[in-house]
Amino acid sequence: MATLKNRKIVLASRPVGEPKASDFRLEEAPAPAPREGEMLLKTRWLSLDPYMRGRMSAAKSYVKPVEVGEVMVGGTVSEVVESKHQGFKPGDIVSAFAGWQDYALSDGSMLQKLDPKLAPLSTALGVLGMPGMTAYFGLLDIGKPKAGETVVVSAASGAVGAVVGQIAKLKGCRVVGVAGGPEKCRYVTGELGFDACVDHRAPDLAEKLAAACPQGADVYFENVGGSTWAAVFPLFNNYARVPVCGMIAHYNDTELPPGPDRTVQLMRAVLTKRLTLRGFIVFDFVARIGEFQREMSEWVRAGKIKYREDVIEGLENAPAGLIGMLKGKNFGKLLVKVA
Amino acid sequence: MATLKNRKIVLASRPVGEPKASDFRLEEAPAPAPREGEMLLKTRWLSLDPYMRGRMSAAKSYVKPVEVGEVMVGGTVSEVVESKHQGFKPGDIVSAFAGWQDYALSDGSMLQKLDPKLAPLSTALGVLGMPGMTAYFGLLDIGKPKAGETVVVSAASGAVGAVVGQIAKLKGCRVVGVAGGPEKCRYVTGELGFDACVDHRAPDLAEKLAAACPQGADVYFENVGGSTWAAVFPLFNNYARVPVCGMIAHYNDTELPPGPDRTVQLMRAVLTKRLTLRGFIVFDFVARIGEFQREMSEWVRAGKIKYREDVIEGLENAPAGLIGMLKGKNFGKLLVKVA
Repeated sequence: MATLKNRKIVLASRPVGEPKASDFRLEEAPAPAPREGEMLLKTRWLSLDPYMRGRMSAAKSYVKPVEVGEVMVGGTVSEVVESKHQGFKPGDIVSAFAGWQDYALSDGSMLQKLDPKLAPLSTALGVLGMPGMTAYFGLLDIGKPKAGETVVVSAASGAVGAVVGQIAKLKGCRVVGVAGGPEKCRYVTGELGFDACVDHRAPDLAEKLAAACPQGADVYFENVGGSTWAAVFPLFNNYARVPVCGMIAHYNDTELPPGPDRTVQLMRAVLTKRLTLRGFIVFDFVARIGEFQREMSEWVRAGKIKYREDVIEGLENAPAGLIGMLKGKNFGKLLVKVA
Repeated sequence: MATLKNRKIVLASRPVGEPKASDFRLEEAPAPAPREGEMLLKTRWLSLDPYMRGRMSAAKSYVKPVEVGEVMVGGTVSEVVESKHQGFKPGDIVSAFAGWQDYALSDGSMLQKLDPKLAPLSTALGVLGMPGMTAYFGLLDIGKPKAGETVVVSAASGAVGAVVGQIAKLKGCRVVGVAGGPEKCRYVTGELGFDACVDHRAPDLAEKLAAACPQGADVYFENVGGSTWAAVFPLFNNYARVPVCGMIAHYNDTELPPGPDRTVQLMRAVLTKRLTLRGFIVFDFVARIGEFQREMSEWVRAGKIKYREDVIEGLENAPAGLIGMLKGKNFGKLLVKVA
C-alpha cells in the first residue's frame, strides 16, 4: 500500500481559560503501518464533545489528560483500510476512539462494527452513541422520572439534552428545557416536543424558569452549571434527583467564583429536601450497552426520538468547532466530517 | 383526678445565631383533661436533638417551625396517667412526641408502647429510637458500605454517629470517626471500637484525617458540615456515597461563609468522582421500622452496639442542654430526666 499522509491535530499548549487556536497544532506524518493483529483505520467522522476541554487541562478528571504534543482524543466513525486483524477486513465501518487525525492504528479493542444500512453512520457518535447513552442511563437510572413529574434539562438542544428531554416526554413527564437563544428554544419546543424552553441568556432566567415549572422540579439533568443551576436550585421539590453529567459553563473557569460560599446552602437543601445528587459518566453503564442500543434504535426508527447534527467540514476546522461549542455556538450534535 | 400542674417550655423568641436562655420561657398551667378517645401522658424522659434548632427558626425545613409562644417539640418517653382511649391504660409506657412539658394529651397516634423489661426506657429515645434508626437506614440504605471500604463518621460520639460507626464495623469496614476533643476520641476508639478518631478541633484536622484514611473515603456520614466536611472532601474515592443527615456546625449561622463560592468545586467532584450525595430524614424510612427494631435490639442485647447517655436532671434545664449540644458539650445521647 502506498504511504498515506496522516494529518493530526495535537495539543500545542494547555489552555488558560478559553482554548485558543494556538493551543492546537496541525501536524503531518506518514500513516503508521499495522503489525500482525492490528489494522489501519481511516477517520470518516470525528465527534466533538464538551469533555474534551477537560482532557486539555493537567488536572485529574476521569482519566489522564492529553499530554502536550499528543493527538487530541475523540470518538470517531472510521473505516478499516488495511487489516492484519482476523476480525476485521478492509471496508468494515466501526465506531472507534481514533482521535483528531486522518488515520489511526487499532488492535480491535473498543471497536464496534456498524451496519450502514441500519442508521446513518454519524448517529453512532450521537443519538445511538455515547451522547445518547449518556442521556438514556443518566435520566432513567439516576433521574428515575415518574409520569406527571417535572423534568428540567439544561443544554436542551445539545446532543445529550435533546435526548434526555424526549425520553422524559415518552415517560409522561412535563419537560422544561433551558437552551441558548430563541432559535434553539423554538427547536426544543417545536421539533423536540418539550413543554417549555427558557433562554439561559435571559436576564430574568430564574423568574422565567420558575414560571415554566409551576409544580417545581423533580429531576434536573445537569449539563451546564452556572446561572442555569442557580435558577433551578430554588425549584427543587422534596426527593428531587439531579444526575450530574457536565458543567460546561465552568470548563473554561480559571478561578472559583466570588463569595459567599454557597456550599452550605446547597448541602442544607440536600438535607431538608432530601435531594439526591449523583455524578456519572457513560462508561459507568458500559455493561448495559445492549439494553440502550435496542431501545434507542427502536425509538429513533419509530420517529419517537429526533436528532439534529451540526456538521463541520474538514479536520483542520475541529479546533474552531470545539472552541465554539464551549461558547454554545453549535446547534445540535457537533461533528467533523473528516473524509 | 386532682388538677395537675403542667410546666412547659415555650419558644419565647426566635434566636439569631446561638440560642440564648431568654429565647425560652418556662410557663405553668393546669394539665389538660383528656376527652373521649384521648389520654393524658406524663413525660418521663425528653430527648434533645440537633434538629430542634431548626424548628426554632422561621425558615421552612422539613416541617413547619415552632411558633413563638408554642411549646418546644421533642420526642419523649411518657407514662399514661389517665386514659379515655381504648388501646391504652394508666401505667402504660409509650414513646411519644409530647414536647418540652410535664404533661400532654394524645389521641394515640404516633405512639408506640414500650416494654420496660426489654430494654431501659431511655433507649427508646436513643439507640433503639429515632437516632438509632437514623443511623441504621442512613448508613445501610444510602451509604451502602461494603466490607473493606473506609467509612468516615462525623459527630462520632453522638447519638447517631456512634451507631453509624459500630454498624459499619459489623459490616467489615475501616471506620474513622471525627469527634470534639481527646476524651470523646478515646471513647470512640476505645469503647466503640472505631479504627481511628480525629479531633475536629485540631488545627491540622485535614492532615490527620487524611492520615487516618490511607485508602481514601468510600462513605462519609455527614452530621456536621464545617471544617469536617472540608477535611473529608478531598478524600472521596470514586463512587463515594454521602448520606447527608445533619449540619450542626451551621445551625447557628446567621449568614453564608465568605467566598470563594465552592459550589462549583463540589459539583465538579460529584461529576468527576461520580459521588452520590443524598439527604434524608428518619421519617423517610418509617414504613420499615420493624426491620430496624428487630436487628438493632438484637445487636444491643448481644453487646455488639454500645451506647452512652448524657442525662440532664429536670425539665427546667432543657434549654441549657440544647444550647450546650449545639456547641458540642454533650457526650453521648442527650436526655432530660423529667420525672
